[in-house]
Amino acid sequence: MTDIFNEIESEVQSYARAFPVVFERAKGSYLYDTDGKAYLDFLAGAGTLNYGHNNPALKEALLEYIGNDGIAHGLDMHTAAKQKFLETLNERIFKPRDLDYMVQFTGPTGTNAVEAAMKIARNVTGRHNIVAFTNGFHGVSLGAMAATGNSHHRDASGIPLSGVSHVPYAGYMGDDLDTVKLLESMLEDSSSGLDKPAAIMLETIQGEGGLNVASNEWLQAVEKLCRKHDIILIVDDIQAGCGRSGRFFSFEESGIKPDLVTLSKSLSGFGLPFAVTLIKPEYDTWKPGEHNGTFRGNNHAFVTAAAAMETFWSDDKFQNEVQEKVEHLSTRLRDIASGYDRKLIKAKGRGFMQGLECRDGELASKICALSFKDGLIIETSGADSQVVKFLCPLTISVEELNKGLDIVEKAVKTTLQEEIKKAS
Amino acid sequence: MTDIFNEIESEVQSYARAFPVVFERAKGSYLYDTDGKAYLDFLAGAGTLNYGHNNPALKEALLEYIGNDGIAHGLDMHTAAKQKFLETLNERIFKPRDLDYMVQFTGPTGTNAVEAAMKIARNVTGRHNIVAFTNGFHGVSLGAMAATGNSHHRDASGIPLSGVSHVPYAGYMGDDLDTVKLLESMLEDSSSGLDKPAAIMLETIQGEGGLNVASNEWLQAVEKLCRKHDIILIVDDIQAGCGRSGRFFSFEESGIKPDLVTLSKSLSGFGLPFAVTLIKPEYDTWKPGEHNGTFRGNNHAFVTAAAAMETFWSDDKFQNEVQEKVEHLSTRLRDIASGYDRKLIKAKGRGFMQGLECRDGELASKICALSFKDGLIIETSGADSQVVKFLCPLTISVEELNKGLDIVEKAVKTTLQEEIKKAS
Amino acid sequence: MTDIFNEIESEVQSYARAFPVVFERAKGSYLYDTDGKAYLDFLAGAGTLNYGHNNPALKEALLEYIGNDGIAHGLDMHTAAKQKFLETLNERIFKPRDLDYMVQFTGPTGTNAVEAAMKIARNVTGRHNIVAFTNGFHGVSLGAMAATGNSHHRDASGIPLSGVSHVPYAGYMGDDLDTVKLLESMLEDSSSGLDKPAAIMLETIQGEGGLNVASNEWLQAVEKLCRKHDIILIVDDIQAGCGRSGRFFSFEESGIKPDLVTLSKSLSGFGLPFAVTLIKPEYDTWKPGEHNGTFRGNNHAFVTAAAAMETFWSDDKFQNEVQEKVEHLSTRLRDIASGYDRKLIKAKGRGFMQGLECRDGELASKICALSFKDGLIIETSGADSQVVKFLCPLTISVEELNKGLDIVEKAVKTTLQEEIKKAS
Amino acid sequence: MTDIFNEIESEVQSYARAFPVVFERAKGSYLYDTDGKAYLDFLAGAGTLNYGHNNPALKEALLEYIGNDGIAHGLDMHTAAKQKFLETLNERIFKPRDLDYMVQFTGPTGTNAVEAAMKIARNVTGRHNIVAFTNGFHGVSLGAMAATGNSHHRDASGIPLSGVSHVPYAGYMGDDLDTVKLLESMLEDSSSGLDKPAAIMLETIQGEGGLNVASNEWLQAVEKLCRKHDIILIVDDIQAGCGRSGRFFSFEESGIKPDLVTLSKSLSGFGLPFAVTLIKPEYDTWKPGEHNGTFRGNNHAFVTAAAAMETFWSDDKFQNEVQEKVEHLSTRLRDIASGYDRKLIKAKGRGFMQGLECRDGELASKICALSFKDGLIIETSGADSQVVKFLCPLTISVEELNKGLDIVEKAVKTTLQEEIKKAS
Repeated sequence: MTDIFNEIESEVQSYARAFPVVFERAKGSYLYDTDGKAYLDFLAGAGTLNYGHNNPALKEALLEYIGNDGIAHGLDMHTAAKQKFLETLNERIFKPRDLDYMVQFTGPTGTNAVEAAMKIARNVTGRHNIVAFTNGFHGVSLGAMAATGNSHHRDASGIPLSGVSHVPYAGYMGDDLDTVKLLESMLEDSSSGLDKPAAIMLETIQGEGGLNVASNEWLQAVEKLCRKHDIILIVDDIQAGCGRSGRFFSFEESGIKPDLVTLSKSLSGFGLPFAVTLIKPEYDTWKPGEHNGTFRGNNHAFVTAAAAMETFWSDDKFQNEVQEKVEHLSTRLRDIASGYDRKLIKAKGRGFMQGLECRDGELASKICALSFKDGLIIETSGADSQVVKFLCPLTISVEELNKGLDIVEKAVKTTLQEEIKKAS
Repeated sequence: MTDIFNEIESEVQSYARAFPVVFERAKGSYLYDTDGKAYLDFLAGAGTLNYGHNNPALKEALLEYIGNDGIAHGLDMHTAAKQKFLETLNERIFKPRDLDYMVQFTGPTGTNAVEAAMKIARNVTGRHNIVAFTNGFHGVSLGAMAATGNSHHRDASGIPLSGVSHVPYAGYMGDDLDTVKLLESMLEDSSSGLDKPAAIMLETIQGEGGLNVASNEWLQAVEKLCRKHDIILIVDDIQAGCGRSGRFFSFEESGIKPDLVTLSKSLSGFGLPFAVTLIKPEYDTWKPGEHNGTFRGNNHAFVTAAAAMETFWSDDKFQNEVQEKVEHLSTRLRDIASGYDRKLIKAKGRGFMQGLECRDGELASKICALSFKDGLIIETSGADSQVVKFLCPLTISVEELNKGLDIVEKAVKTTLQEEIKKAS
Repeated sequence: MTDIFNEIESEVQSYARAFPVVFERAKGSYLYDTDGKAYLDFLAGAGTLNYGHNNPALKEALLEYIGNDGIAHGLDMHTAAKQKFLETLNERIFKPRDLDYMVQFTGPTGTNAVEAAMKIARNVTGRHNIVAFTNGFHGVSLGAMAATGNSHHRDASGIPLSGVSHVPYAGYMGDDLDTVKLLESMLEDSSSGLDKPAAIMLETIQGEGGLNVASNEWLQAVEKLCRKHDIILIVDDIQAGCGRSGRFFSFEESGIKPDLVTLSKSLSGFGLPFAVTLIKPEYDTWKPGEHNGTFRGNNHAFVTAAAAMETFWSDDKFQNEVQEKVEHLSTRLRDIASGYDRKLIKAKGRGFMQGLECRDGELASKICALSFKDGLIIETSGADSQVVKFLCPLTISVEELNKGLDIVEKAVKTTLQEEIKKAS
Repeated sequence: MTDIFNEIESEVQSYARAFPVVFERAKGSYLYDTDGKAYLDFLAGAGTLNYGHNNPALKEALLEYIGNDGIAHGLDMHTAAKQKFLETLNERIFKPRDLDYMVQFTGPTGTNAVEAAMKIARNVTGRHNIVAFTNGFHGVSLGAMAATGNSHHRDASGIPLSGVSHVPYAGYMGDDLDTVKLLESMLEDSSSGLDKPAAIMLETIQGEGGLNVASNEWLQAVEKLCRKHDIILIVDDIQAGCGRSGRFFSFEESGIKPDLVTLSKSLSGFGLPFAVTLIKPEYDTWKPGEHNGTFRGNNHAFVTAAAAMETFWSDDKFQNEVQEKVEHLSTRLRDIASGYDRKLIKAKGRGFMQGLECRDGELASKICALSFKDGLIIETSGADSQVVKFLCPLTISVEELNKGLDIVEKAVKTTLQEEIKKAS
C-alpha cells in the first residue's frame, strides 16, 4: 500500500518513518488511517492544529467560501477575504492587547516570515548581523537557516551560513551564567568581535530546541538591551504563538513589545499554509514588492484564520480553558516524572509546549514508539531528540488529554524500568 | 472600503496598487470585485491559475475531500491524498515522458523548492558555487535570492548575496555572442575566477525576466556542458511548467533531461500553495528531515493537483488545444505590434508566456493601466517592467482571449499614437 | 618640516599623530629625531624590536651580507641565508624545546602568517569555521580581520566578515564564568549554532586587546578540548613570541603544543618584515605554491634573524636576564598603581607585556602624552585604549627601564591627582 | 646540502622546485649559487628586481643608512627616510605626470595594498561588490584572493570567496566579443544579477595571468564606464608598474587616471618588502589606523626606493633605454616564434612583460627546464603555465638580453622539434 512512497518519494521523509501508516481522515484530536484505525494526535501538525483537525466552525466557513467561488489565490491583491482577516485580526487580537502592527503577508511558510523579518531589521538599521540563540529554530531557507542552531539542518546547506551570531539562550549554563549579561558585555565591548546587530531574534519557548523556556525577567532584560542599543527585537512566535503558550502571543505575559513578530503554523487554524510578519509601523519601510512570493495571498487561509479568531479569541473563554488544561498537563507530567531520577526524566516547558526531558534521545524515542503502538502520535524535540513533546490541540478535552497521558505514562514506566534493570 | 488595507497592511503591497479594487469571487477567466464587476484575468495568479479560477472539476474534488474530513495538514506523513497525487504524477506525467524522478515535498512555495534544489546540488557535488543567468528569477528567500538577478529584490536583502555566479542568458548580447561558448570558456579556464559550479540553474523561458526564450539548441548545449563537466542541471520550471509552455514541462521540446526540476505555481491547479523538487534518483541523498518545513504536506493541494492531472493530462487533448490557442495568440501579438517600429513595441515569448516588449516601462505601464480601465487585468515584467505579459489561464476560450487582446490592442494604439505625437 | 606628510601621506596615519616629530636615527632603547633629541622607546615597533634598535651584532651581520652582494630578494628559492636561518631555528629553538614543526615562509607580515594558518586549518579539516576570542587581534587583511575583535578595524572592511565565531576569552566575565566550559558546552551541543570549527586560534597574552592574560590552566583546557574534538590549535604568537613573554614562545610555560604557530614582529630581530607559520608535519599538506607572495624570501631578515637567535637564544642567559627585568617591572608597576583605587588604575599583564589599566582611554592617553613630553615613547592598547602598555626592548638596561618608569610614574601622579581633584 | 630544506621547510615551496640549487650572491642580472656558478636571471624576483640585484647606487645608500644607525622599523611614524621617499615620489613621479595622489603605506606586500584598495572602494561607495577580470592575479590573502582568478590559489582558501564578480578581460573571446560592452550591458541591466560594484579592478597587463594585454582603447572604455556609473577604478600596478611596462606606471600610455593604484614589487628597487596604495585625495577617507600593520614603516625600503627614483626616474634616459630594449625583445621573440605554427608557439605581451605562449604548459615547462640547464632562470605563467615569461631586470644589457634569448631560442628549437617529430 505504501509502495508509491517507496518508489518515488524522496528520502528526505521524516515523520513518515516514525508513523508508518497511511492517514486518510482527521477530526478534532484524532487522525484515522486508511483502515479506519484512530490515533490520538499529540503532534498536531507540529503545533499547526491548535484548534484540532477540521474544526467544524472553520470547516463550515471554508466550504461556504469555496462553494461560492470565493477567490482561492489572489497574489497580494485586495480581496474580501483578506479584508475580513485584517479587520478581525485588528479587532480581536491587536486592539485588546494594545498592539500596533502593520501586517506583511509573506510567502505562506514560517521560514519566509522569518526571512522577511531579517531583511527588515537589516534594511532599517543598515547593519548585517543578527543575534540568535543556542537551540533556536527559525527555518531552513538560507537566511533563516543561518539563525537556526541545529547542525543536522545547518550542515545540509552546502555552504557556510553567515550573518548571524549565536549566543547562549536563557539558562544555557544553568544558574552559573546570566546570559543577557554576557550578551550585554559583548555588545558593549567594542573589541568583542560581535558586530553590532540589526536585531536580536528569539523564541520565548524553544519548541524544536527542546522546550527551553525564557523567563519573563530574561525577556524583559533582552528588550531593555535592545532599547538601550537601538537594536530591533524580533520574536519568532511561529510555534509558541496563536494560543499555544496559553495566550495568543507567547510574549504577552512578559509585557515586552517586540518590534517584529512572525506568525505561521496555527495562524490559519485549519492547517493551511499561512504566515505573516508583524511590523511596528515605523519599521514598515518596504518598497512595493521588494519581498514577494506567489502564495502570499492564500485566501482559503484568510477565511479560516478569521473564523478561528472569531470563534476562539472574541473573549477570554478559550484562553481560560486552555490555561486550566495547561495546569492539568503540568501536574500530570510532574507526576509521571516524579518517581525517577531527574537525570533520567523530568518535566519541562510552558503552556501547551510541555514535555518530558529524558537522559538521551534513545529513551525518548522508545517512549514515543511505545506510545504509537497504543494509538498515540507524539514526537521528540531537542538537540539530541531527548524531549518527548506534548503538542496536543488546544481544543483537546480533558478526557482525551488524560488518555494520551496514560499511554505515555505506561510507555515511560516500561522504558525506564527496562533501563534501570539494565543499569543495575 | 479599502480602509483596513491602508490602516494595517504593509507598504510591501505590489499588485494591489495596480488594481485598486477589492476582489471577492472568481470563476474561470474572470475575477469579480465586491460590486460584482467582472475583470478578465490575464495575470492568473502570475501563472498560478493555468486551469482558471475555481475550476469545477478541482473544486468538486476539494469540496468532497473537506466535506469528508480529509486530512488538511499532514506534515510529511503518508496520507491517502498524497498517495493519489504521487500515483497520478507517476502515471500521467512521468511515465508517458519516460522520466524518472524522486519527489521532494518542500515547503509549499517556489522559493523553497529552489532552496532545496540548490542544497542538493551543493551537497551532492561538494561545491558551493551555482551558475545562474542574467534576468533569472528564482525567489526571494536568501538562498534563491542569490540566484535571482533583479536588483530591486536583491538590494532588499540587507546583506551581500553569495554563492552564485551570474552569466549572460541565451541571446543576451544578441547574435554577437554565443553565451554558452562564453560560459564554456570560463568553465574550462582554470584562472577565470568562475569557481567550478555545483549546478547550472535556468528557466527555459524567463517569466519575470521579460519573456526571454532559450532556444532548444541553447538548452541542449547547456545540458552537454553539464554532462561534460559533471555539473548538476537544474530547470526552474515554476512559472513555465505545468503546461504554460504548451507541454507539461517547458523543457520537453528540447529533449533535455534536467537532474533537478522545481515545480510550483500551477501545480495544485487551484491556486493553493504547493511546490515540489524533482530529483534524479542518484541525487536523492537527503538524510531524513534535513530539509523540512511545516506545510510540506498541504493535502488540499494534493487533492486538486491529482484532479488537475487526471482532468487535463490524461491524454493529448488539452495540450493540443493549448497549442492552437498559443498560435492564435502569437499571430495576434505580431499583428498588434506590426504597425510600429520594433524599437517601440514587438512581440516576444513562447507558449502562453508571450507578450509585447515596449521601448520602456512607462509605455508598458500605460498599456496595462488603460487595459484595466476596460476590465482587463494584465501586468508587466522585465528588468524595466517593459514587457506586457499575457499569462492567461490555459483554459481560456478563444472568445475570451480575443476579448482581452482587443482591449490591449486598443490600449496599445492609444498609448503609442500619443507617444508618436509627442515625439514628432 | 612635516609638510610632505600633510601634503601627500594618507589620513590613515596613526602613531605619527601621537608623536609629531620626525625621527632619524635609533640605537638600542633610544630613538633620535632630526634635531638630535633622544626619546626612550617603550613602544619598540609595537613589539618588533625586542633586541632594540640597530642591535650591533645583527647590524654587523647585515652590513657584511649586503656588502658581499648577498641575495636580497629570493622569492621562495633556496638561499644560503635561508639555509642558515632554518638551521639556527632548528638548533637554537626547536630542538631544545622538543618541538617538531615545518616552517612556511609566508608573506613577511603577521596578517599573512595568520591567513596561511587559517587556510591550513580549513583545508586539513574540511571545515570552514574558526573560533577566535573577544579582544583578539590577528591582522587586517580580510581573512585575519574576521578573527580580529576590534570594531574600529572590522568596520573598515566594507563587507561583512565571516567564517569566524567569537567567544569569550579567559576571564572575560571575571570569576563568574569558566569560558572554556562555555565553549565546550557549545561545541558539544549539536544545536548551539556554533559550527564545528576547523581551529581554535588564540593569543596567550592579548597585546592589542589590552594585556589580557590566559592562565596556564586555561590554555591547557583549550588544548584538551582541541584534542578531544579533533580541532586544530593555533597560537598566534606574533606579539607575545620571540621572547617577549619571558621565553621564546609564549606558550612554553603552559606546556601546550599548538598545531600551528604564527611568528612575526621580532622574528628578524632588526625590525625587518618577516613572518613564518610553523606547522606540525602532519598538517603540512600544502600543494606547491598554493599560498604565495612576492616577499616570502626576505633574505636580509633571514640574516638578522639567524644572528639574533645565535646571539640571544644559544643559552639561557638572555632569558634569565629578561625574567629578572620582568619581575622588576611587575614590582614597579604594582607600586605605581598601589596608591590609587583599582578602578582608576591597576597593573596588568605578563612578561614584557605588562602595563597599567586605567579607568578609561582618556586617562591612559593623558599619561602617554605627558610621558612623551618627558622624552618617553609609550602607547595604549585595549578596546577603549585604556591600557598603558610597556613594550620596551627586552635588551633594555635596568637604568633605562627605571628612567622610563619614573617618567610614567610622574605622569600617572599628575593625571590622577587632577582627576581626583575634578571628582571631589 | 639542501637537507634542512627537506627537513623543515614546508611543502608549499614552489620556485625552489624548479631551480634546485642554493643561491648565495647576486649582482645585476646574475645570481650565483654556493659553488659560485652564475645564472642569468630572467625572473628577477617575479618582477621585483627591475634595477637588477644589489644595484650599486641603491646598495650604497642602504649601507650608509644602516651604518649611521638609520631607523629600520618605524611603524607609521614620520621619519627622515620616509620624508625623503615621499618628496622624491612627489617630485620625480607624481608632478611630471600631473598626478595627484595620497600615499598609504600599507603592510609591505602587494596583497596588502590590494586589500587596502578594496576596503577604500567599499567604504567610499557603500557597495560591497568589486568587478575583477578573468586571469587577474591580485594576491592570496582572503580579500585579494576573491579577486584573483586562479583556482589553484582560490581552492586553497578553504572557504567560499565572495564580494567579487569576475568578468571577461580584454580580448577574452577574441574579436567576437567587446568585453567592455558586455560589462556595460550587465551594469546597465538592473536584473543582470551583477550587483553595482564599488570598483572595477584591473591589471593593464596580466602578469601571472599569462601576459594578456589590454589595449589603450579598452582601458579608456573601462575608465569611461567607471565615470558614467560612479565606480572607483583601481589599477593594480604591482607587477606592471615601476617601469616594467616601459613607463613608470603601466597606464600612462592610455592616458587614464585611476582612482586607486597599488604598487609593490619593484617599488623599493632592491627587492625589499614595500607596498603603497595611491589614493585620489577625495577618496582618502580613512580614519586613523583603520587599516594598519606592523611593517608599514620599512625604512630600509624607503631609502632604496628614493635612491631608485633619483637614479632612474629623474629624466627620460632610463625610460628611453628600456623602450629600446623592449623593441629588441619584441623583435627577437617574434623571430623565435616565427618558424612555428602559431598554435604551437607565439610571441605575446607588452614592455618588459613579454613572452612566448606555448600550446600547453608541458611545452613551456620543458623550455624553461632546458634553459635552466644552460644557466638561465626563467619561469612560466598563465592558467596552464603555458607562457614562458621574460621578466628580466630593466637594467639588463643588450648582450645579457641576447645571451638569455639565445638560450631560450635553443631550448624552443629542441623542444618543438621533438614535439613535431612526436606528432608526425
